Amino acid sequence: MTDLKKSWVASANAADTDFPLNNLPYGVFSTDALSPRCGVAIGDSILDVARAEEAGLTGTDGLLQDAKWNPLMAAGPDVWSAFRARLAALLAEGAEDRDAVEPLLVPMSAATLHLPIEVAEYTDFYAGKQHAQNVGTMFRGPENALPPNWLHIPIGYNGRASTVVVSGTDIRRPMGQTKAKDATAPSFGPCQRLDIELEMGAIVGSPSAMGEPVTVAQAREMIFGYVLLNDWSARDLQAWEYQPLGPFQAKAFATSISPWIVTAEALEPFEAATPDREVPLLPYLVEERPGLYDIDLSVEMNGHTIGHTNMRELYYSASQQLAHHASSGCAMRTGDLLGSGTISGPKPENYGSLLEMTWGGQNPIQIDGESRSFIEDGDTLTLKGHAQGNGYRVGFGACTGTILPAPDFYKETT
Amino acid sequence: MTDLKKSWVASANAADTDFPLNNLPYGVFSTDALSPRCGVAIGDSILDVARAEEAGLTGTDGLLQDAKWNPLMAAGPDVWSAFRARLAALLAEGAEDRDAVEPLLVPMSAATLHLPIEVAEYTDFYAGKQHAQNVGTMFRGPENALPPNWLHIPIGYNGRASTVVVSGTDIRRPMGQTKAKDATAPSFGPCQRLDIELEMGAIVGSPSAMGEPVTVAQAREMIFGYVLLNDWSARDLQAWEYQPLGPFQAKAFATSISPWIVTAEALEPFEAATPDREVPLLPYLVEERPGLYDIDLSVEMNGHTIGHTNMRELYYSASQQLAHHASSGCAMRTGDLLGSGTISGPKPENYGSLLEMTWGGQNPIQIDGESRSFIEDGDTLTLKGHAQGNGYRVGFGACTGTILPAPDFYKETT
Repeated sequence: MTDLKKSWVASANAADTDFPLNNLPYGVFSTDALSPRCGVAIGDSILDVARAEEAGLTGTDGLLQDAKWNPLMAAGPDVWSAFRARLAALLAEGAEDRDAVEPLLVPMSAATLHLPIEVAEYTDFYAGKQHAQNVGTMFRGPENALPPNWLHIPIGYNGRASTVVVSGTDIRRPMGQTKAKDATAPSFGPCQRLDIELEMGAIVGSPSAMGEPVTVAQAREMIFGYVLLNDWSARDLQAWEYQPLGPFQAKAFATSISPWIVTAEALEPFEAATPDREVPLLPYLVEERPGLYDIDLSVEMNGHTIGHTNMRELYYSASQQLAHHASSGCAMRTGDLLGSGTISGPKPENYGSLLEMTWGGQNPIQIDGESRSFIEDGDTLTLKGHAQGNGYRVGFGACTGTILPAPDFYKETT
Repeated sequence: MTDLKKSWVASANAADTDFPLNNLPYGVFSTDALSPRCGVAIGDSILDVARAEEAGLTGTDGLLQDAKWNPLMAAGPDVWSAFRARLAALLAEGAEDRDAVEPLLVPMSAATLHLPIEVAEYTDFYAGKQHAQNVGTMFRGPENALPPNWLHIPIGYNGRASTVVVSGTDIRRPMGQTKAKDATAPSFGPCQRLDIELEMGAIVGSPSAMGEPVTVAQAREMIFGYVLLNDWSARDLQAWEYQPLGPFQAKAFATSISPWIVTAEALEPFEAATPDREVPLLPYLVEERPGLYDIDLSVEMNGHTIGHTNMRELYYSASQQLAHHASSGCAMRTGDLLGSGTISGPKPENYGSLLEMTWGGQNPIQIDGESRSFIEDGDTLTLKGHAQGNGYRVGFGACTGTILPAPDFYKETT
């Protein structure tokens, strides 16, 4: 456990800010006066690092001018580390450059946050064992709950990058095919079982070449940072479509991520090991260094906490998932986003999806006197997460989204 | 059936060229003297349309300077049609501009072909009914061969865009996890059941917005053109990994496409209807206009034809697949690539994969006195395809790849 590093930005020294000097997460912001650009959160402010780079303060050369972090990500771990050290020096208590830096701070309250990266491709894994067991029990029965490959492979599937959006983006309820158990044919209409999935997202910084696998240790060095990730899910569409080729439209309509990329380096003090192996892993997946982080996670619906868990519940780390992803020779790219899989803990209050919390809708939850089996139009769902240091926290900022009614497109056109 | 349109490029008037004036497909090429750039195939030559645009001959303004076709694709159907009409005028017998155009022709034999588009995302469908029945029988038994949703949904899954390569690119045999039926645990090593899948690829030109579905008719207008597509598949990896979330590393290592995009407009004379529906489709998938094309397709192994089929065997068209893809509100983008699914005909000689031809390896095929259950190192697999006109053909050029041995990466590093 490390201590708070003090900043001359007073709000960054508060015990409850997500953004102390220990954190320095990366986002993209705009204001009425400033076009979208790279920024770094510090307390209740954002440092405009696009202008800081122009002023020669960042030690980088043209990597911060694109309103996305991909150019810096592509520059590799040595550049990441040097840039972060430089930021820490600029913002630390007693910094020599304070006079040059202070005019480049923007109040966070005046900023609009944008997607911090150009997402190359989005892959969603399934590394929460409690979640896999819960969902498997509901979809296939308790005897077949955990698939036979699950303890050997970090199971994943390719998701859709075109609908990855930043926190705060409204989400339109999807339409799709569903089939009631007693129906002879499917019908088409708005999703009736709309859900969240509480996940962590790992962002790939350094690429790997086609045909060239990487070790788990190499994979770890490729990971730039982490975000919170809500893998919105249409459970009724999913149940009808997912056999035999996996989830498709049930997941394709939206994935929300928190606006600030917390770097792997900022999370180092909070490293945590994956749980003990229940069966030995094949050598290409064995990880020596602890691959998870002790990150406290929660889900809120309309402002009320409905779930509470921790990243440590995952059975596989992002490094193991990435090494598996590249093991066939699949080329990995700067900007690839890897969802961890839903992070559920052992008890119902630790579950990371409504499907699990309400056990398929059988046991609705109560909020403000209202009952919810799944998400209704107008509901706002929010993920939060932070690692707890000694008198400070490294936080992610909220990952939130409000549900809009389904489109009436087909009424108009068919 | 339409007749040959004559060109002043004599080789384009031969009955057996893939590239008469009726075709005019789009690729990206380079030579010793010319950097990669957009080109149009005509007979045994390529028209350098990057230079033609600079010379003011194409009616476009800066859409052809990027060594990929995405800028023109994003410009929409009216621009596609006007550009194609302009090309036809430049290359037709008796063209006024012949003197200006002729110096911009490059012999195809001197050119290296590159990936013609930047692939945004790659989706692979499963629209060949014979294929779905064959594979389903082998993987799940004859009673469960065709999944219950198959006649209602154009089943698909998201593939990996980072490993889509142009014809001629060597393919490295993937490594991965497999589990023998009698083994208690999986093992890791080179794929032993390496296969092809003969598919058509549809390329999305016009995008659709997140949250906004499209009709089948609108989807059709979004499709820029078609290529041949080989969805290389590692069957042993696939069998162990694909439940419950679908194929992942078994398909991620490589997908090859033919180098020339044949436009939807060039294929219009060859329109063909999908087969009669076995059950009625939901209204959002009903297609009025014939959605397929009469395209003769074949597979060669080491120069010997081993399979022969036709695009007309598909149960769903690309327009139906695209409309389904967007039905949940999934945003579609310029450069999205949609694989049709393996196109198998009714008899073993019409099958589009070795898995089917050899029935899971039980009945090896004989080539040049050698026996093949699956692909061996050094084998070259080639897809070919063309639509037959009256004295001419609209062809795709070959889609070929040679298998390199698996990497010895893990021996070195673990």
